[in-house]
Amino acid sequence: MIARVLDFGAYAWLALAAMFVAPQSEPRIVSPDVSADRRVTFRLRAPEARSVTVTGEFMSGSKALEKDEHGVWRLTIGPLEPEIYHYTFSIDGVRTIDPANPAVKTGSTASTLASVLQVPSDAPAFYDARDVPHGEIHHLSYQSSALGRVRRVTVYVPPGYERTQTRYPVLYLLHGANADENAWHRLGRVNWIVDNLLATGSTRPFLIVMPFGYGVAPNAPQEQGQNTERFARDLVGDVIPLIESRYRVTRDRGGRALFGLSMGGGQALAIGLNRLDLFSHIGGFSSGLGSNPDFAKSYATVAANPDTANKQLRLLWIGCGTDDGAFAASKRLAEFLTSRGVTHTFRETPGAHTWMVWRKYLHEIAPLLFK
Amino acid sequence: MIARVLDFGAYAWLALAAMFVAPQSEPRIVSPDVSADRRVTFRLRAPEARSVTVTGEFMSGSKALEKDEHGVWRLTIGPLEPEIYHYTFSIDGVRTIDPANPAVKTGSTASTLASVLQVPSDAPAFYDARDVPHGEIHHLSYQSSALGRVRRVTVYVPPGYERTQTRYPVLYLLHGANADENAWHRLGRVNWIVDNLLATGSTRPFLIVMPFGYGVAPNAPQEQGQNTERFARDLVGDVIPLIESRYRVTRDRGGRALFGLSMGGGQALAIGLNRLDLFSHIGGFSSGLGSNPDFAKSYATVAANPDTANKQLRLLWIGCGTDDGAFAASKRLAEFLTSRGVTHTFRETPGAHTWMVWRKYLHEIAPLLFK
Repeated sequence: MIARVLDFGAYAWLALAAMFVAPQSEPRIVSPDVSADRRVTFRLRAPEARSVTVTGEFMSGSKALEKDEHGVWRLTIGPLEPEIYHYTFSIDGVRTIDPANPAVKTGSTASTLASVLQVPSDAPAFYDARDVPHGEIHHLSYQSSALGRVRRVTVYVPPGYERTQTRYPVLYLLHGANADENAWHRLGRVNWIVDNLLATGSTRPFLIVMPFGYGVAPNAPQEQGQNTERFARDLVGDVIPLIESRYRVTRDRGGRALFGLSMGGGQALAIGLNRLDLFSHIGGFSSGLGSNPDFAKSYATVAANPDTANKQLRLLWIGCGTDDGAFAASKRLAEFLTSRGVTHTFRETPGAHTWMVWRKYLHEIAPLLFK
Repeated sequence: MIARVLDFGAYAWLALAAMFVAPQSEPRIVSPDVSADRRVTFRLRAPEARSVTVTGEFMSGSKALEKDEHGVWRLTIGPLEPEIYHYTFSIDGVRTIDPANPAVKTGSTASTLASVLQVPSDAPAFYDARDVPHGEIHHLSYQSSALGRVRRVTVYVPPGYERTQTRYPVLYLLHGANADENAWHRLGRVNWIVDNLLATGSTRPFLIVMPFGYGVAPNAPQEQGQNTERFARDLVGDVIPLIESRYRVTRDRGGRALFGLSMGGGQALAIGLNRLDLFSHIGGFSSGLGSNPDFAKSYATVAANPDTANKQLRLLWIGCGTDDGAFAASKRLAEFLTSRGVTHTFRETPGAHTWMVWRKYLHEIAPLLFK
């Protein structure tokens, strides 16, 4: 019945959209345009521009697009490996997104803005949605007593949670600089990755809690010195109690993991290794450890009592890509831990400071948690 | 203890960020920059550009920015009314977002991309987060049997839901063309609006379900004729059963409302008025009704049986701004309903085809639902 009566409106919204969307008399520009052989063409209509370049995680440096007689700039690269890449255009020297691509990487500062390119593989990748049971993503809002304002936290709830009566362990998972509490979900594909692992029985079910990792304004450099301390108060004093009252989760250190990437990796190690009363699984991906860290001071308790720490730590995992500017610091941390006899895993992998690495790390560590 | 050991990492992430973020030797550009008197300055660093203009919902037409000796373009406008506005830049003729503004409006097509400017008021607005009990936003994924793929739906769950045993009514709320299932949450502020209404006892608690309104590809004009029909199958055959099995909700027509904006307003009326067995509250905001709609055909059952419809319809609400290109069609629909004796509310308000209008409409209709 619905079908019969709807033909009146066939092009209704198109007509309406035409009234309000910016006039586009020219044919629609498709960019990025991924061909079957995984070559990618970027396009931009810019008759008045004098130079257009693209910079992206699929190549080093930038490349110029070339303008045709219709004022459309284009560049074809590849074939590329199946992956999710981020890229930006530079239009007459202005770095911005690809205006024809609806997929935009956003965060807490504008420096993170980029366009998203997915080059699909023949079969769904480990981070793609498949026809398996799906967990849910929740956004909770709470009044942070530590910070005196309304904050948001994102939660992955595994499939089956609503139908069980058991308590679940929790992975607290922190984002990097310039990102926000949605980064692990939108860019990291945390829900698809864990859904897929659960479907093959490769991991235990657990909740993943992704708080906003800034305790200070992201754009206020003079405040960054207090950032981890202030965030730690919010995490320990507000986020963990909120989660443990809202969800059926275990409420002991054995059921709490704390991991993060980049800035969040530094936070996870700094907070976690000094709160082994709260966390049993700790890790950092491409961790932001600073240019001249004093590990003996930062992790004094663990370093002074390695046997106690080794009993308490069910997992201490440090990973970094060898092309990552943060690699040397992670390697020095691993060497420091070895020198003090603190059991840990140091994963040295290919890759740079990108989500390509972090999605793989999440996929790798999830099966190691809460075993 | 955490505070003491964290000073090592004071500027750790800043140092790390400096390694990976695009080099920015110049001072950071602040745009948009809202002053205390609600004047707004837009800025763009573009020494090589020849023209930069801004187009936005705060004014008609576009205005040029002017370049200073450092290559920074700027324009100050206002004072503006406190509101949330969308705007774009045009850089040498290329329409794009403001690259210095992290707040980006995204959707299912690139034509919707814009930057977001909030001009705050002295007290929090009806759409701002306040220190009141907060509902949750959930993203559910499901395999759509109607469409044969994994789809997402966003759900607002009111505060208190987890602590009660009662069943809640449900508002199904549809987005417009080029948008997606996150639009009502991210742009419409549906959670803050209803949280605030609930805090003052101005509305009953209900769930709000925001599905993805495209049954066909948003960028495939030749398929749009089947869009509402295909979406209706997903809504009725997949989304409603999913919600009614996942949540404690009423499972009868009295507890179901169907509203939408623009394309979604057309869908809500087309689907809802032909399924009074499913819905009791129906409405369209700035509805996409087509340029030459045949209401007698589209709503034949209601028009032929107004007395039955009037008994079934607890609310039929049609609203449109008088500056909206869709206004004439909504007004004709209201006149048609009047001529057939179908009880309804026609709200004629100031405003155009913008989220400024739709947030107000949601705020207005929420207290009318499920009374």
